Amino acid sequence: MNPVSIVASGHTRFGRLDGKNLEDLIVEAASEAIADAAIDPAEIDAVYLGHFNSGMVADGFASSLIHQVSPALRFKPATRCENACASGSAAIFSAINAIRSGSADLVLVVGAEKMTSNTTEQVTRALAGAGYQNNPAEAGLSFPQLFGIAAREYTKRYHDPLPAMARIAVKNHRNALDNPLAQMQREVDFDFCDTVSDKNPLIASPLRLTDCSLISDGAAAVILASPERAKSFARQVSFRAHTHVSDFLPLDKRDFLAFEGPELAIRSAYQEAGISHQDLDFAEVHDCFTIAELLVYEAMGLAPKGQGERALLDGTVTREGRLPVNLSGGLKAKGHPVGATGVSMHALAFRQLTGTAGGIQREGAELGMVFNMGGAAVANHVSILEATRA
Amino acid sequence: MNPVSIVASGHTRFGRLDGKNLEDLIVEAASEAIADAAIDPAEIDAVYLGHFNSGMVADGFASSLIHQVSPALRFKPATRCENACASGSAAIFSAINAIRSGSADLVLVVGAEKMTSNTTEQVTRALAGAGYQNNPAEAGLSFPQLFGIAAREYTKRYHDPLPAMARIAVKNHRNALDNPLAQMQREVDFDFCDTVSDKNPLIASPLRLTDCSLISDGAAAVILASPERAKSFARQVSFRAHTHVSDFLPLDKRDFLAFEGPELAIRSAYQEAGISHQDLDFAEVHDCFTIAELLVYEAMGLAPKGQGERALLDGTVTREGRLPVNLSGGLKAKGHPVGATGVSMHALAFRQLTGTAGGIQREGAELGMVFNMGGAAVANHVSILEATRA
Repeated sequence: MNPVSIVASGHTRFGRLDGKNLEDLIVEAASEAIADAAIDPAEIDAVYLGHFNSGMVADGFASSLIHQVSPALRFKPATRCENACASGSAAIFSAINAIRSGSADLVLVVGAEKMTSNTTEQVTRALAGAGYQNNPAEAGLSFPQLFGIAAREYTKRYHDPLPAMARIAVKNHRNALDNPLAQMQREVDFDFCDTVSDKNPLIASPLRLTDCSLISDGAAAVILASPERAKSFARQVSFRAHTHVSDFLPLDKRDFLAFEGPELAIRSAYQEAGISHQDLDFAEVHDCFTIAELLVYEAMGLAPKGQGERALLDGTVTREGRLPVNLSGGLKAKGHPVGATGVSMHALAFRQLTGTAGGIQREGAELGMVFNMGGAAVANHVSILEATRA
Repeated sequence: MNPVSIVASGHTRFGRLDGKNLEDLIVEAASEAIADAAIDPAEIDAVYLGHFNSGMVADGFASSLIHQVSPALRFKPATRCENACASGSAAIFSAINAIRSGSADLVLVVGAEKMTSNTTEQVTRALAGAGYQNNPAEAGLSFPQLFGIAAREYTKRYHDPLPAMARIAVKNHRNALDNPLAQMQREVDFDFCDTVSDKNPLIASPLRLTDCSLISDGAAAVILASPERAKSFARQVSFRAHTHVSDFLPLDKRDFLAFEGPELAIRSAYQEAGISHQDLDFAEVHDCFTIAELLVYEAMGLAPKGQGERALLDGTVTREGRLPVNLSGGLKAKGHPVGATGVSMHALAFRQLTGTAGGIQREGAELGMVFNMGGAAVANHVSILEATRA
């Protein structure tokens, strides 16, 4: 079966976007994608929304907010998908199925979240809802606490990961300097990130502020097309593989640090695409916490278990390296409007593979990977994306 | 393309199910469906959850609660779909796409909601979130208020619909007497339903208590199979058509009373299936309020606009009639655990079409319709289901 392609993208700035509600963000990203595709919105067959919410906003029936983009969308089917922080990829994967099933040729996918209208405490509680609440031992743990457990376990099993985590923060902040869509464009050095201070306090031991992703508003959009329909677009980026692996939710049913779900999703995607990590030109991965990015290096096969830091020390994953990871700045510095994140990763990968990524462009990029994760390694979505050469 | 089939079902009782949380409900319905299919859960390729939530419970990452059913589900992809009160059908339609895309052969779909752990005020607020909140004129309207507007408009445009609405309540309460899964098994007579009283108070003028569906806990499940995979099952009910039409969310962008979205979805489904309402043996339709069921008669073509009551007066839609509507008791008496409703409709239609519906069985039923609606006629999902004869 010929692959589905991304043919256009839209992307708001990420950050504290006062005065813009969820609807505004959806409309902005979707409008940009429609303009980028140079289509009449009437040509769109279906729309999908990735949106987490979990009580953060009440703008109304979220998937139908996409119809606010254009009267031409009236009567087009709209569906919201929610897989916690992988809601954006869940929407994209559902859209791929809609196309491959023959029920749609051109699908608009939007991911969006409005978070900054809540207090940090409210956001923390909303996100904690993506953990398992029916076991008293883990109910109510915040996500920083969950990933703090992973960092402590890493120390116990291998060695102290904190210096590697600081290097990841430095790298992603550095990368975001060249991404005008990023929420935080501020360089930070290794000593700052690796030292607990008034300005870099502990959030959940041993995670420091610089180990945590941001609370963000934002939206991203892509337009997906069937193989036949894609031919009429100037730019096409095809899904050479896409995999979705859901692990058990309760932590006591699995070895969280082993990151088995992410590893299985990534390795299955390599296999489906017939590639290894050696073939990738870049990757956008889910660094909700710096320890997660470290574990992803190992899941990707860039280094053996417990030795992910090597990929940093030998320069593999830096912007000049063989396989730059999170050229966008990642969730760490680009920002993490939950439902938007998976769509943002695909939108920016589309731009990389069509040579339109601006300051964060990897020259000559032909093959990229997206890894978007919902919950604590629960919903694991991987895409291998490839530029289609005319 | 050969149609996808339902091959098994599960269904909890609907009602106030104290001591059962969302996870318990999901596990109960899913386990029954797996047992009904007589399969090893390892054979399931993917799972989908229909779940509204909107702040009503916080059991954790909802789609991954399905994995609590069996260790054999580990690593199977799980996705939650949310289209307000049509979340269950959104999950089923996404599962159909997954099968038709070739990415899955056997899919478990669960719809579930836990509502009664909230106060009525909290539930009303959660449901109101499925209306449009960014227009001050309609923000904060409750769903009884929204459908009260429709009933008043019906009076203005045609005639007073209250007697017809009372007849619908009487019919659906009567039908539920034979459905042991129903929340409310209590016969009510026309005078009781058609009179405002201490026991039948106005909820939102002119809607009375008996015009409103219930606040319920419950879950339902179906197992869907590809044409090839379905052959190994004793019972197969195929989707002869399925349509999804999403209308604009804001009420000021459309004529709510005209019910254009439902009508388009239903008529398109007839066309796709090559049938008329004359061919249907039964229908399960979305009677969130009795006025909605009245409008559905007209959208189905059972009577001209403004004359839906005819279908009641001439007996067409009663249990002994030509086309019984809501043999299950409907949302009105069976109950309406929001995310479960669409899956429940499909599960009970499956039972009708396989002669296993017990006391609510329509003898010889071969063709049935499901109409599940999200929001105030916003997300409109219709299935035409057909028994496959060996």
